[in-house]
Amino acid sequence: MEQAMIEKGSKLMLDFGKIEKAAFAAKRAMRGGFIPVVVQDAISNEVLLIAYTNQEAFEYLLREGIAAFWSTSRDCLWVKGKTTGCFLKLREVRVNCEQNSLLYLVERTGKRGACHVLDEDGAYYRSCFYRRLEVEVGN
Amino acid sequence: MEQAMIEKGSKLMLDFGKIEKAAFAAKRAMRGGFIPVVVQDAISNEVLLIAYTNQEAFEYLLREGIAAFWSTSRDCLWVKGKTTGCFLKLREVRVNCEQNSLLYLVERTGKRGACHVLDEDGAYYRSCFYRRLEVEVGN
Repeated sequence: MEQAMIEKGSKLMLDFGKIEKAAFAAKRAMRGGFIPVVVQDAISNEVLLIAYTNQEAFEYLLREGIAAFWSTSRDCLWVKGKTTGCFLKLREVRVNCEQNSLLYLVERTGKRGACHVLDEDGAYYRSCFYRRLEVEVGN
Repeated sequence: MEQAMIEKGSKLMLDFGKIEKAAFAAKRAMRGGFIPVVVQDAISNEVLLIAYTNQEAFEYLLREGIAAFWSTSRDCLWVKGKTTGCFLKLREVRVNCEQNSLLYLVERTGKRGACHVLDEDGAYYRSCFYRRLEVEVGN
């Protein structure tokens, strides 16, 4: 129920504790750290998702040429599309100035959206960022 | 010297420890957590940077309509462009499915690039992701 509210609701419930929790879990498991990755569709330029990678997931990505991450919630290697067959094929890897974040430019190998949440027509959202915040900002 | 190697070098020196360090520092300072934000140029669709926000920085952003972050290295509110006058004006805020990351679509108010690193012509890089990794990936 709470998951549905987080995913489908219009109420903002930002989970600011997420990274902290994941960092402590990684420390306990002595896994080494992780950094954020932004995944952008190389064709549409749409930002699809933010996920995390560590040494193991990064090596997998370079070896296989498909987007793989470190799942901070399940604490395991997460090959995007492994269960569905819709992979994110790597086109380009970019690294930021401080070498503490990455940008993956990808092509989707299937028609399925990159998000695990279904839209109103029962199709997976193309991007995890399917919700726009209704904010009034000064001009 | 090491900073120059990290920023300008072609050697990959990913700082996987970054988030962990920041998370522990935030915990010690009892600041509450933070989540990653990807900033995308609303005109060119270029991904400019990944930074972090917390409750304080997020409230500032909504109030002022310009991109502000929580600096995890300096442990303070970081209003992008405050010293240079080149702000990132907020066009849209998007939230991901799990409400643990954000996408800011912005317009740059000046001609200055979003990165603090200078390119070979002495201009600031438009995006922090100015380096492409030379990787051979399977096809």
